[in-house]
Amino acid sequence: MATNSLTQRVSSGEPAAVARAISKIEDGASDAAALMKEIYGLSRGALIIGITGAPGAGKSSLVDKLALLYRERGERVGIVAVDPSSPFSGGAILGDRIRMQTLGLDEGVFIRSMATRGNLGGLARATVDAVAILDAAGYAKVIVETVGVGQDEVEIVKAADVSVVVLVPGMGDDIQAIKAGIMEIGDIFVINKADRDGVYATEKELEALLSLTSRSDAWDPPIVKTVATENQGLTALADAIDKFRQTQLSAPASSERRRAIARWRIVELLRERLLARVLASDASVAMLERLADEVATRRRDPYSAVEELIKS
Amino acid sequence: MATNSLTQRVSSGEPAAVARAISKIEDGASDAAALMKEIYGLSRGALIIGITGAPGAGKSSLVDKLALLYRERGERVGIVAVDPSSPFSGGAILGDRIRMQTLGLDEGVFIRSMATRGNLGGLARATVDAVAILDAAGYAKVIVETVGVGQDEVEIVKAADVSVVVLVPGMGDDIQAIKAGIMEIGDIFVINKADRDGVYATEKELEALLSLTSRSDAWDPPIVKTVATENQGLTALADAIDKFRQTQLSAPASSERRRAIARWRIVELLRERLLARVLASDASVAMLERLADEVATRRRDPYSAVEELIKS
Repeated sequence: MATNSLTQRVSSGEPAAVARAISKIEDGASDAAALMKEIYGLSRGALIIGITGAPGAGKSSLVDKLALLYRERGERVGIVAVDPSSPFSGGAILGDRIRMQTLGLDEGVFIRSMATRGNLGGLARATVDAVAILDAAGYAKVIVETVGVGQDEVEIVKAADVSVVVLVPGMGDDIQAIKAGIMEIGDIFVINKADRDGVYATEKELEALLSLTSRSDAWDPPIVKTVATENQGLTALADAIDKFRQTQLSAPASSERRRAIARWRIVELLRERLLARVLASDASVAMLERLADEVATRRRDPYSAVEELIKS
Repeated sequence: MATNSLTQRVSSGEPAAVARAISKIEDGASDAAALMKEIYGLSRGALIIGITGAPGAGKSSLVDKLALLYRERGERVGIVAVDPSSPFSGGAILGDRIRMQTLGLDEGVFIRSMATRGNLGGLARATVDAVAILDAAGYAKVIVETVGVGQDEVEIVKAADVSVVVLVPGMGDDIQAIKAGIMEIGDIFVINKADRDGVYATEKELEALLSLTSRSDAWDPPIVKTVATENQGLTALADAIDKFRQTQLSAPASSERRRAIARWRIVELLRERLLARVLASDASVAMLERLADEVATRRRDPYSAVEELIKS
C-alpha cells in the first residue's frame, strides 16, 4: 500500500516522491521490484537523451544549457548523471552541489546523480529505472549524462532514445581508440569547446570516421558545434535531437533498437537478481568470505570457489 | 588432455600457447574453466601493475616506455590493454597495430588487447584471467592498462598489486569528479605530459586532494612527473612501484586488500556463471527474445519478465 501511494505521488510529479522512489531502487529496497512494475505502467513517453564523451569534454555544461533551453520552451526536464568514476564516495555529491547553483532552484528540473554501490553492480539497471521514474513523473525530457567511456556507460547511453557523443578539439592520443568505439553508438556528434584551435581538424577526422561506419538505419549522424559555456549551438543540438526522433518514429530500424535495449535491460536485471538470490542468506555470505580468504591466500582458485558456491 | 598440454605450453612461456589460452577464456570455451584451474596453480608471483586514467593522458606511451625499461633490466613483460570503449569492433585491433610498431618485435614482450564480447559481460573476469595466464607463463611484470574511468575499469585496476593513476595538466572541468573517485584507488599518481603548462597547479591540487584521502594502510601515495614520449621520469615511476611492493609485502593491510580482490573476482565469476546457466538452453534464449519483444512494445515490464525467466 505504501508503494502504491508512492507510485501515485510519483505520477503526480511530486519531487520528494521521485527522489524517494529513486533511492529505493538504488538501495535495492525490498519493495523496489513492486514499485517498478507499477512505474513501468505509467510511462508518458518522455524523450530520453543519452549524452556521453570523454572527461573534460564539458558534458555537464552542455547538459545544463540544454536543460535550460528546454525549460524556456516550458518543458520539465529530468537529469540523471551517472558517475561510475567514484565507486566509493565524493564525486556524485560534489557534482550535484556544483550543478544546483545553476539549475537547482528551478522546480521544473530534477537532478540526480547515480554512483556505484558496493560490488553487486546494478548501476546501469538503477539508472534506467531512475529514467523510468522521471518519465512516469511527467518530465518530458530526461537527459542521462555519463562521465567516462566504460562499458556500462556505453550501455546506458545506448538505452536512450537518442545518443549524443561529445568530443572536443585536440583530445590527444587516445582519441582514435575512443572514436572507434563510440562511432557506432552516436546518433548525433557534438564538438564542444568549438572556439578552440583544432575544430576543423577534429571535424574532418570525425567525418572521415563516420563515412566508414555503417548503421542499420538510414540516419546520417550530424555534427553539431557548440560552445556550451557561451550558450552557442544549443538550438542546433535541440533541432538535431528533434529531427532524429521524428525519423525514428517512422523507421523500421527503431523497433529492432528498442528490442535490443529491452533485451539488455532484462539481462542486466537477471544478472543482478541471480546474484542476489545466491548471496541472500547469511550462510552463503559467510561461505563467500571463507572462499575469498582461500583464494586470497592461493589455497584455492576462483573457478572452483564459484563451483562450490553454486553447488550450495 | 588438450587443455593439459596447453597448460604445459603456457607454463613453458610459449607465446602462441599464451595467445590461445587467452582466446579460450575470452570466448568462454567449454574447457576454459578447467584450463584456468590449472593455470591458477602455476602462479609465479608476477608483479601486476594496473595503470588507469582519463583518455588523452598518454597511458599507452607511458606503458610502452615502462615496458621498455623493464626489458632493459632483462625482465619479460606482459601487457593487457583493456578497451571497453569499443564494445563492437575496431578499437582494440587498431590499438594493437599501433603498439606493435614499438614493442611487437621483441619476444620478451606479450601484448594483448581485451574488448567486450556481446552483452554477457565478463570483461573484468577475462582480464584477470589473462593476467593469471601471463603470470603462469613467466612474465615477471604484467601491466594492465585501461582506457577510461568506468566502473569495470576501476575494478580491474583495483585487482592489481599496484595501481597507478595517470593525470595530465589542465584536464578541464571534469577533473574534480574524476579525482574524487580515483583518489582512493591510486597507490601512485603520475602527472604525464609534465612539460605542459599547468603542472604546478595540477600537482598542488592533487596534493590537496590526497591530504583529504584516508587509506587503510600507512602508504603515502607519491606523485611522479613524467614525459613518456621523451622517456622522462620512467625510472622514478619504476622506483615508486618497487617501493610500494616492498612496503606491501610486510604490511598487514595488504592481506585485507588481497581478500577484497579475491571476493570481487569470485562475485564477478559467479555473476557470469549464473547468467550462463539460466541462458544455457535454446528454449531459455527463445524465451528471452519473446520477453524482450514484449518489453520493447511495452506489453510487459522488465521486472516481471525477469521473474518469468527465473521461474522457468
